[in-house]
Amino acid sequence: MMRFERVAVIGVGLIGGSFALALKSAKACGQVVGIGRSAANLRLALEKGLIDFVAADASDADLILVATPVAQFPQVLASIAPRLKPSAIVTDAGSTKRDVVAAARTALGAKFRQFVPAHPIAGAEKSGAGAAQAGLFRGKRVVITPLPENSADSLQAVEAAWTACGARVSRMSAEEHDAVFAAVSHLPHLLAYALVHEFAARANSVQLFGYAAGGFRDFTRIASSHPEMWRDICVANREPLLAELDRYADKLRALRPLLERGDGAALEELFTEARAARERWLNGEVE
Amino acid sequence: MMRFERVAVIGVGLIGGSFALALKSAKACGQVVGIGRSAANLRLALEKGLIDFVAADASDADLILVATPVAQFPQVLASIAPRLKPSAIVTDAGSTKRDVVAAARTALGAKFRQFVPAHPIAGAEKSGAGAAQAGLFRGKRVVITPLPENSADSLQAVEAAWTACGARVSRMSAEEHDAVFAAVSHLPHLLAYALVHEFAARANSVQLFGYAAGGFRDFTRIASSHPEMWRDICVANREPLLAELDRYADKLRALRPLLERGDGAALEELFTEARAARERWLNGEVE
Repeated sequence: MMRFERVAVIGVGLIGGSFALALKSAKACGQVVGIGRSAANLRLALEKGLIDFVAADASDADLILVATPVAQFPQVLASIAPRLKPSAIVTDAGSTKRDVVAAARTALGAKFRQFVPAHPIAGAEKSGAGAAQAGLFRGKRVVITPLPENSADSLQAVEAAWTACGARVSRMSAEEHDAVFAAVSHLPHLLAYALVHEFAARANSVQLFGYAAGGFRDFTRIASSHPEMWRDICVANREPLLAELDRYADKLRALRPLLERGDGAALEELFTEARAARERWLNGEVE
Repeated sequence: MMRFERVAVIGVGLIGGSFALALKSAKACGQVVGIGRSAANLRLALEKGLIDFVAADASDADLILVATPVAQFPQVLASIAPRLKPSAIVTDAGSTKRDVVAAARTALGAKFRQFVPAHPIAGAEKSGAGAAQAGLFRGKRVVITPLPENSADSLQAVEAAWTACGARVSRMSAEEHDAVFAAVSHLPHLLAYALVHEFAARANSVQLFGYAAGGFRDFTRIASSHPEMWRDICVANREPLLAELDRYADKLRALRPLLERGDGAALEELFTEARAARERWLNGEVE
């Protein structure tokens, strides 16, 4: 198994903290230093044993994970660039990839090839070091979006780190990644936020929430997600997300006449097909 | 506590079966007879002790719960009308109320006043007698939509039955009920079915479902609901549901420019407000 002597995690939240803990549990690393903007969060990370030290910079590290909200990447990457060791690998946990790649290209300059973009698919509406857990990535997918500039070794190293965390790693282009996640992740978040916001703004919102039940609770669970993180994702990935939003609006427009004319047979067919597709997915028949 | 000597449940599925079991557990009833179209399901209901007998009609019962899909109500109510005892109370578990009231008015004629419309808010994507459980309604809401023709006694009796099941009973008009549930229940179901159907129909659906994760799973849980039941609900309640669909489409249209111009501040504000409203709801501060 690959072993990373010095790991630096910038942004020791749910994702960064869980990555550190998972590497430690797998004995895939030596020391982990934590870097972040919140002193209280870093103290908690130390207390929970996610990290061994708090540091001001990551210049000694062999492997650096950038796990801050995506909007901070330009600044974070620019700050580590000057003292980055030639052998160090930088990777990230950003939910969008084209913007992260662009930020890394600008910030890292000649060291751009040392950056391996990655996205662990392990969301949760909880955040911060307090929510970190060693098993967060077990069985979950991690997408690496390789750059033409990356060495085969650096790609394998990042893949090995995530594999040590128990994740299933796959590769695709940054463009493909952003299109896929605009559909299956970013759009549902936007739709859930919009529905809750719509009802909260109504004169009878107390009555509406008073009768909302389990279906509504699950449908809107992701509307409890971190607003800053989702602001950054929506802004960074707005073109594919707008395309998905428009396709969904078209879908609703196509569905409307079925409802208007009370076409029970067509509605039942649509519902049956949707349920069957979802069951196939849940049963692992899709993949 | 009120006690019902003979209870008849027409449609011994998740809701009807759980009602029977809850009444039995609370010792609020004598015998329960089950009536239904599936012999296999009725056998299961007998085996599980949900019902004591299978019957062909409900003419002996003091309390009759109609818990079939809503589209069957006209036929079911017409079949029980001729031999309904003057002292018997008929109630239902339909998710829509204006159409149920209209069906009861037509089918029951002079006995219409014996019908007390009700809606237990306890959905689940499971169905059938096998899914029934005594605690299904514990802490859940039941809405009664009284008719001007109902006696105070019959309203109290139905209220007492649901209270015995552990539910919290409230009253509103059928119109108000249908508008509220179009928003907080029927619309989310339609939105979830539409999203799954949209992705299932795409050329890259295997890839999309392959990367869908926990957020998508919860958002679309209600797309595994019973297609026939939701067909009936959507058709029966289509005017309020269309109004909600249009308002939601307007909401998405209003949100679109924020995304288009990358207005992070406005998006973050919307997400923050939505999350706060949802947290207030989860904490029981709304109600």
